[in-house]
Amino acid sequence: MESSVDIALIHYPVLNKAGEKIGSAVTNLDIHDIARAARTFGVGHYYLVTPYTDQHDLIQEITAHWQQGYGATYNPARKRALDMVSVSTSIEQTVDELTRIRGKKPQLVTTSAIARENSVSFRRCRNMIKDGQPMLLLFGTAHGLAPEVMDMADLNLPPIAGKGEYNHLSVRSAVSIILDRLLGCRE
Amino acid sequence: MESSVDIALIHYPVLNKAGEKIGSAVTNLDIHDIARAARTFGVGHYYLVTPYTDQHDLIQEITAHWQQGYGATYNPARKRALDMVSVSTSIEQTVDELTRIRGKKPQLVTTSAIARENSVSFRRCRNMIKDGQPMLLLFGTAHGLAPEVMDMADLNLPPIAGKGEYNHLSVRSAVSIILDRLLGCRE
Repeated sequence: MESSVDIALIHYPVLNKAGEKIGSAVTNLDIHDIARAARTFGVGHYYLVTPYTDQHDLIQEITAHWQQGYGATYNPARKRALDMVSVSTSIEQTVDELTRIRGKKPQLVTTSAIARENSVSFRRCRNMIKDGQPMLLLFGTAHGLAPEVMDMADLNLPPIAGKGEYNHLSVRSAVSIILDRLLGCRE
Repeated sequence: MESSVDIALIHYPVLNKAGEKIGSAVTNLDIHDIARAARTFGVGHYYLVTPYTDQHDLIQEITAHWQQGYGATYNPARKRALDMVSVSTSIEQTVDELTRIRGKKPQLVTTSAIARENSVSFRRCRNMIKDGQPMLLLFGTAHGLAPEVMDMADLNLPPIAGKGEYNHLSVRSAVSIILDRLLGCRE
């Protein structure tokens, strides 16, 4: 049962520790953990966004092992998760592709560990999804999405608030929590 | 601002794919991702539970790099997360230690991807925590907590329900979501 939500893990343009624009490296566990969460919560597509073609090759190699190789028979549940993974060279290309697939341009929704003005509440975003609004959630690797990505957004989600000011979740944790807040079954 | 909640990641006794009781290996990213989530949500202590002393040495080596080594000055936020990590040889030892620290035996709360009878809702568990009840949440590595651990529990949390029947979250994702549901700031 798919929702109208797709997600993208952005490897360029993101920020490094010094706040400079960089391209980050794809990691194996970002692919696996996020694909498993995406499949659990009924996300449509999980895009890994990077302009580097060697990184595209790496992603293909990892996913192929679980889709066609020994992994596919050893762990069919992992195959089902990794079947959702797509590769894209840019956010623009991802939006174009999803617009074709969904028949409507998705709302671009950014996530950040830093509070911004004009953010939309999780509750409001959850209701928009229920109403069938296609959404593409953007998650940043390294030290987060570059300002130019934040400026592209139709909506910004607020940071995940825990206890106190500490807020240094891994992107894998942040994606899991945000998908649960937006798509999880609430008792 | 600490809550009365502690967590333990169990490496023995857990199940393998065939449902046999095994001890699993500690992984670097389980230490990091879960410590970061635990710190974000105000958990008191994060125990890595394994009887194998070589695994204790590995955990010490990894955490020491970020607590005393180059990592401590390079990334003080990671130091703050890893300062929460403790090592324990068994669930019983963990409970004894926490009973001393908290001055009261914690309720043992198990988590599982499989629904069980007599589970407590997330809402009810959240309210018990608000009332100051010390709780130790147990998370299983590999294919989940062994039945003997489930039988020790005072309370069982239900599986995390997404969309449909697919439910193969990584333990890192499951911990993050459960801490958010029990301790996260709700808008």
